[in-house]
Amino acid sequence: MNTTEITAASEELFSGKILHMFHDEVILPDGGRAMREIVRHPGGVCVAALDDKNNLFFVRQFRYPYREEVLELPAGKLEKGMTPLENGKRELLEETGAEGYSYISLGQVYPSPGYTDEIIHLYACRVSSVGESRPDFDEFLNVEKLSLDKAVEMVLNNQLPDAKTQIAVLKTKLLLDSGKI
Amino acid sequence: MNTTEITAASEELFSGKILHMFHDEVILPDGGRAMREIVRHPGGVCVAALDDKNNLFFVRQFRYPYREEVLELPAGKLEKGMTPLENGKRELLEETGAEGYSYISLGQVYPSPGYTDEIIHLYACRVSSVGESRPDFDEFLNVEKLSLDKAVEMVLNNQLPDAKTQIAVLKTKLLLDSGKI
Repeated sequence: MNTTEITAASEELFSGKILHMFHDEVILPDGGRAMREIVRHPGGVCVAALDDKNNLFFVRQFRYPYREEVLELPAGKLEKGMTPLENGKRELLEETGAEGYSYISLGQVYPSPGYTDEIIHLYACRVSSVGESRPDFDEFLNVEKLSLDKAVEMVLNNQLPDAKTQIAVLKTKLLLDSGKI
Repeated sequence: MNTTEITAASEELFSGKILHMFHDEVILPDGGRAMREIVRHPGGVCVAALDDKNNLFFVRQFRYPYREEVLELPAGKLEKGMTPLENGKRELLEETGAEGYSYISLGQVYPSPGYTDEIIHLYACRVSSVGESRPDFDEFLNVEKLSLDKAVEMVLNNQLPDAKTQIAVLKTKLLLDSGKI
């Protein structure tokens, strides 16, 4: 079955610093019409950084939409003029002070494909040296380390809700166990 | 370090059928101010439904934000007046025609905690009988079946970008292998 939807009309409702929201009318595969509420986002990056004892670097920060602290792998929005990998190296350094090496891609994530076009690029790396973290002016976070096995256990026990973190932790574990990292 | 942000002002920019967008001013932990662009969403549900040969039911549909077809586990928005589990059973039946049993929770997912409050509830189940699918009027999709092992391979090879799908596939595999499903 053909499933393609074609844009009939597009209205930009909000053009923010990060998000751009659109209300589009689409032509459905059967010729009918429907409205789509969508968010455009610059994209993100997330890094699973392992030290030589297979501990992962995490950041714990307040996530305003949920009004709670969430424990996540270091991550951030893509900045223009840098590749996703360069953004990953930058975010890891800014948020944790860690410098990574031997970066490998863990693929891409579509966080919620019904309404956002965000793509999150995932990487794993090893960590060589750790200095001071330098978060953005409006970013307050605590750096924590957890063993990879403890992180896997927490994902399976529903203690790490963040999507990119769950995926990067489980992929790192499966790829490490099969000798691919 | 305290990381809590307190709402100083909240402006609703858009109140849609599904999404509600807000532009909030927050008081940072150091007393400074920052703007937060956030999307409120009713929440979602996703089901990893296994037949007796450990094949998973998938749906392939056009995802308008990405302008491409995406292969995902059956999923949908939460409807009011039903529990997440009831919504999961409803979505599986509507999208694939399959009736599940022995449902277990695979936890919750925060798809992109920087800007959305969406929570996606994940379940795994077994499938007893398969009838006709009955998608919504504006939903056009194709049902496909893949073995669980093939799905895991596709996640590891970056062929299934959807976040909830990657997480539910990997958790189902790890829990099945450890005898917990």
